[in-house]
Amino acid sequence: MTERPSPTALVRSLPATVPFVGPETQERERGRPFRARLGANENGFGPAPSVARAMAGAAPQMWKYGDAQNHDLRNALARHLGVGAENIVIGEGIDGLLGLVVRQYVEQGAPVVTSLGAYPTFNYHVAGFGGRLVTVPYRDDREDLDGLLNAVKLQNAPLVYLSNPDNPMGTWWEADAVEDFVEALPPTTMFVLDEAYGETAPPGALPALDVSRPNVLRMRTFSKVYGLAGLRCGYAVGEAETIRNFEKVRNHFGMTRMAQEAALSALEDQAHLQWVCGEVEACRQRLYRIARKNGLTPLLSATNFVTMDCGGDGQHAMKVLQELGKRDVFVRKPMAPGLDRCIRVSVGPAEEIDVFEAELPEALKAAR
Amino acid sequence: MTERPSPTALVRSLPATVPFVGPETQERERGRPFRARLGANENGFGPAPSVARAMAGAAPQMWKYGDAQNHDLRNALARHLGVGAENIVIGEGIDGLLGLVVRQYVEQGAPVVTSLGAYPTFNYHVAGFGGRLVTVPYRDDREDLDGLLNAVKLQNAPLVYLSNPDNPMGTWWEADAVEDFVEALPPTTMFVLDEAYGETAPPGALPALDVSRPNVLRMRTFSKVYGLAGLRCGYAVGEAETIRNFEKVRNHFGMTRMAQEAALSALEDQAHLQWVCGEVEACRQRLYRIARKNGLTPLLSATNFVTMDCGGDGQHAMKVLQELGKRDVFVRKPMAPGLDRCIRVSVGPAEEIDVFEAELPEALKAAR
Repeated sequence: MTERPSPTALVRSLPATVPFVGPETQERERGRPFRARLGANENGFGPAPSVARAMAGAAPQMWKYGDAQNHDLRNALARHLGVGAENIVIGEGIDGLLGLVVRQYVEQGAPVVTSLGAYPTFNYHVAGFGGRLVTVPYRDDREDLDGLLNAVKLQNAPLVYLSNPDNPMGTWWEADAVEDFVEALPPTTMFVLDEAYGETAPPGALPALDVSRPNVLRMRTFSKVYGLAGLRCGYAVGEAETIRNFEKVRNHFGMTRMAQEAALSALEDQAHLQWVCGEVEACRQRLYRIARKNGLTPLLSATNFVTMDCGGDGQHAMKVLQELGKRDVFVRKPMAPGLDRCIRVSVGPAEEIDVFEAELPEALKAAR
Repeated sequence: MTERPSPTALVRSLPATVPFVGPETQERERGRPFRARLGANENGFGPAPSVARAMAGAAPQMWKYGDAQNHDLRNALARHLGVGAENIVIGEGIDGLLGLVVRQYVEQGAPVVTSLGAYPTFNYHVAGFGGRLVTVPYRDDREDLDGLLNAVKLQNAPLVYLSNPDNPMGTWWEADAVEDFVEALPPTTMFVLDEAYGETAPPGALPALDVSRPNVLRMRTFSKVYGLAGLRCGYAVGEAETIRNFEKVRNHFGMTRMAQEAALSALEDQAHLQWVCGEVEACRQRLYRIARKNGLTPLLSATNFVTMDCGGDGQHAMKVLQELGKRDVFVRKPMAPGLDRCIRVSVGPAEEIDVFEAELPEALKAAR
């Protein structure tokens, strides 16, 4: 064996697994493209035309590094949200920010609490920085707030993760339940509240922003309703010192200038956002109908996807997913026990939903 | 004092310093824009028009996450460089990749060797992951290969960094010197060879690519001659298993789709690259003349900047930099003892160099 540099003990212990296999990878493996890209919770309604124009206009300026302080975008978000610019940190998507949070608060071997079957990329970061995952099963298809709280206390965990609305189930808690959870948390436990799907939630699901608590980070993104997943732009809102601590670990010039420009422009086009939210709601309703028509049970969704109970076990739902794949329809499914009876279908333009609607009956027949 | 989550011991130990204060930050502090942006080693000649068009064309597609495997770009680079796609990892600029390398190979407290006054962002990552920097002074304004090698051996260092051509001095080593260095390195020491400025180096400065050694990572970027600093796209070339290890720690969906599209398009427009390289050379010649005309001694440069010896000490050069700033000219300067007698001026379009040329005599007079 060739002598070679040795990775750290931690890195040696990590598997080379990937949180998600992306649709392009699947297309290359299949040897042909999907006709319906409904698996990644993207926003097929697209970014606003005004934002696409802003990107085109900014393109010749891409020789400049982005502003390391993300000043204009932070300030625009601060105005939009009614908090201070010092309460916001911008990052390379929520994915990037989650990595920075884990890195900041998790010593090797420390327990980190999340739900069994919740966001795999968070788990990837916890493993990557040597944390020990403590998982709490969902309860009635929702993340179990009491269970999470108990686990935090039992383990004296420095970090807990919750997505509200939830991915992969699309369910949600009302604001008061989340606020009770925050109130009951030890003040020394950092709480990451992932609100990637916040804009499509019913009124009343998002607690008011409160930047007085040092142990709460609210994470949001331009990847979903704003239609800019391909530009990697997320942000965290929190107490000023908590936010300032990111300066110690973030990649200061890591944000693309393009993302900053596009996000700024997207924020200004709230009319497009409203239109997208309308389309999302209409598409959810259509997906509910399609599910029911085919004997599946849709879960009421606060997100840009609809999770459908296939009425069998995990193996059956996996077959449905595979049969849809054979018919060029890309969807995903939850994998955790209890949730794995479902498939998860993102909203999208009518033509793609048409494909899903046309192929679902055959896929279900083949899966039986 | 409010009870709050405690960052890890390592993070608590980190200062909140920033490797660089960007030009936009400086402009906000000054209250007015620079007339000449010649401090960040950007490429003011810009990306190719073909690339700007590709970005504009791709803009409406930004609702899709980027391909997590960076498949097309890796394969295009592989063809371009004559290596395998398995020998390339794409990252969010060399900055991002440097962080991943440090994270992979540096246990807390481990020694990491670099030159005193070399790339601050590398040092930032070393500190950020708890490494112990061991610095070797420059020798005759070049990084001291023998000194670096001795330090590696003395410290049994797992990681050593060299930029060739060098930043901030613009000097370089010929390929055979670098190859001798590689040959003499312990095979258990990872060698990061930062070739961000490789395309503007004289023929003969870059060793042939050899992907057989597990302990060499060659880093390159689309930020310099390709004019895409604002899109954050760099790559590392190395032995397949070394490259594969990045999968354990990288943010798989972290690359923007825009960067992938733009870099692919930039790679195809080699005519533009050649034109830029010609402009860079012409501008270096002009900067040499301007320096000499003003009694400064330019260092022969293999990069897209010219470092100029101001003929005094560090304080004098700092005054020159400040006086240029007052005159709306943004340049930088090396800070390490021995190098700090210099200012560093990036190449740029004629109009900006005109401003520098016009303001330099007054700035020098004021600095005396």
